[in-house]
Amino acid sequence: MMGSALSVPLVDAGHEVRLVGTHLDREIIDALGDRGFHPTLRLELAPAIRPYQLEALGEAMLGADVIGVGVSSAGVRWAAERLAPWLASGVPVVMISKGLGWDGQEVTLLPDQFAQSSGTSVQPAAIAGPCIAGELGRRVETSVVLTGRDPRMLARVAALMATSYYHPVISTDVAGVQVCAALKNAYAMGVGFGAGLHERRGGLGGSVAQHNYEAAVFAQAMVETERLVLALGGERSTVLGLAGTGDLTVTCNGGRTSRFGKWLGMGLELGEAVRRMEGATLECLDILRVLGEAIPVLEGRGLVRKSELPLLVHLIEVALEGRSVKVPFDRFFGVA
Amino acid sequence: MMGSALSVPLVDAGHEVRLVGTHLDREIIDALGDRGFHPTLRLELAPAIRPYQLEALGEAMLGADVIGVGVSSAGVRWAAERLAPWLASGVPVVMISKGLGWDGQEVTLLPDQFAQSSGTSVQPAAIAGPCIAGELGRRVETSVVLTGRDPRMLARVAALMATSYYHPVISTDVAGVQVCAALKNAYAMGVGFGAGLHERRGGLGGSVAQHNYEAAVFAQAMVETERLVLALGGERSTVLGLAGTGDLTVTCNGGRTSRFGKWLGMGLELGEAVRRMEGATLECLDILRVLGEAIPVLEGRGLVRKSELPLLVHLIEVALEGRSVKVPFDRFFGVA
Repeated sequence: MMGSALSVPLVDAGHEVRLVGTHLDREIIDALGDRGFHPTLRLELAPAIRPYQLEALGEAMLGADVIGVGVSSAGVRWAAERLAPWLASGVPVVMISKGLGWDGQEVTLLPDQFAQSSGTSVQPAAIAGPCIAGELGRRVETSVVLTGRDPRMLARVAALMATSYYHPVISTDVAGVQVCAALKNAYAMGVGFGAGLHERRGGLGGSVAQHNYEAAVFAQAMVETERLVLALGGERSTVLGLAGTGDLTVTCNGGRTSRFGKWLGMGLELGEAVRRMEGATLECLDILRVLGEAIPVLEGRGLVRKSELPLLVHLIEVALEGRSVKVPFDRFFGVA
Repeated sequence: MMGSALSVPLVDAGHEVRLVGTHLDREIIDALGDRGFHPTLRLELAPAIRPYQLEALGEAMLGADVIGVGVSSAGVRWAAERLAPWLASGVPVVMISKGLGWDGQEVTLLPDQFAQSSGTSVQPAAIAGPCIAGELGRRVETSVVLTGRDPRMLARVAALMATSYYHPVISTDVAGVQVCAALKNAYAMGVGFGAGLHERRGGLGGSVAQHNYEAAVFAQAMVETERLVLALGGERSTVLGLAGTGDLTVTCNGGRTSRFGKWLGMGLELGEAVRRMEGATLECLDILRVLGEAIPVLEGRGLVRKSELPLLVHLIEVALEGRSVKVPFDRFFGVA
């Protein structure tokens, strides 16, 4: 979805885009080849976006200026292995995959996973910030963050991608951006509880709903995000900007994660809420699993304290252990 | 509205509340006296909330443990003069009024305006953070910030106010909290542009709308809020919490300010957008007027740079000078 959507500004910026599907995307690539229509984005794509099945990867790579990677976080190692033969030439790689890994000792960032799995020293840049695919495909204006460790490469790639409606800004705080990008899925689930509780109490949508509740959860989410960003080597300033407040805002307003949170807030049993998502990737569960394992280890090393993360601890209980929603407001903002 | 709504947790915390109307609130006080019904909150209030007309102020003050002030920012000086006779006894004052003043040289905080106008040394505490009155009156859970310069007084007042659904946390960063509380109205107007542009282009509500746009504006709003908080003597950490991200979130989701911004985003002429608000207080215009005068002076003193505040500068152009909405994304996040 996101890889295809990103093709729209790239074509508008004057590029040819070769869109290679994984084995999970065969039907989308077929539909694009037959009719130029993207079935999940529900959008006609420009002819300059050329679809390729996975078997034609080599053909698609010929003369590429930039390689984009849009697989889910679980597919990053797979993608790195597949792409390894084309990385030696120094062509920049840009990832739109988001998430964090856990190797039992350390939280790992996806660009590092990619570099390691590819067996090269290629460190991909990564994109984060507010960007719903369906809106980008329809040219809704936004700003995003392009992060990586080489500012010259970032500036070059940002200049290639920018259009009148797609504004990449650059940041060398890879850890901060990636931690924010991953955490927002967990926290958006928690903000979504409010809408569910409201419906459960018979409420209708409107300006008087559970917006106070949602906003207090949002603010606590940002405070906890800052704690985790600092614990994992990121910078404080990243949290206030696009990767932090911006991406959490859009995920609460437009994402499937907040819908999942709403169902939990309505009192649906965990398994039933997952079933209702009809197989959609639930990044919030992935990141909560990672953090559920990582936090005790990080706490043992003195990097974070569970007592500073009461919202996250509750989200883990709800989403992984099936507890009922009861957000611990009385422990928010350093109280108790 | 907000003063009346705050009576609900106070009564639930076991207090008697004496609700004194200004001369503008006669009908509300009458309706509460006759039927116990609050016409603008559209809510029946408990009998322990006792309504008083302004002439009975002296009677209402007898034996008060705390004095709350819920007038609009324009009424703070008036309220301070009226309440002066009862301030000598050292009874704590809590303000829910929000805004900033400008005396031609300095940005002034409402608690300081109150102290000065009362002719006493009483420095009121102030409440900020996510709190839509209609939701508080219906006991929707939230956390708020109680700010002031005396932490012992804050702790005492917070303990008096807390209930199972109303969670005051305390902060001694008066400038930071008050600047955030005032700015959120201006910036929520800007976030609201997105919904208006979406409707103008024929869009319907839903998960694919202009959420990317709104979220990028939100993030830039937080970055600019931090600049202004620091320039006006507040603390960075306040911006990420309830007074900053929390209050902006709720104001975007439930407030009249974002509705006003939506009309401007739809392309309505400024005067027409104001007319459609049917006389509702537009705090966003007040704060933009203050900042429109203050920023050149603050810039002259080297405290802020206009180039760091491109969103605010555009909001001033739109709301005070009648310019069309065209948010300068290309100058956001320190670019250019």
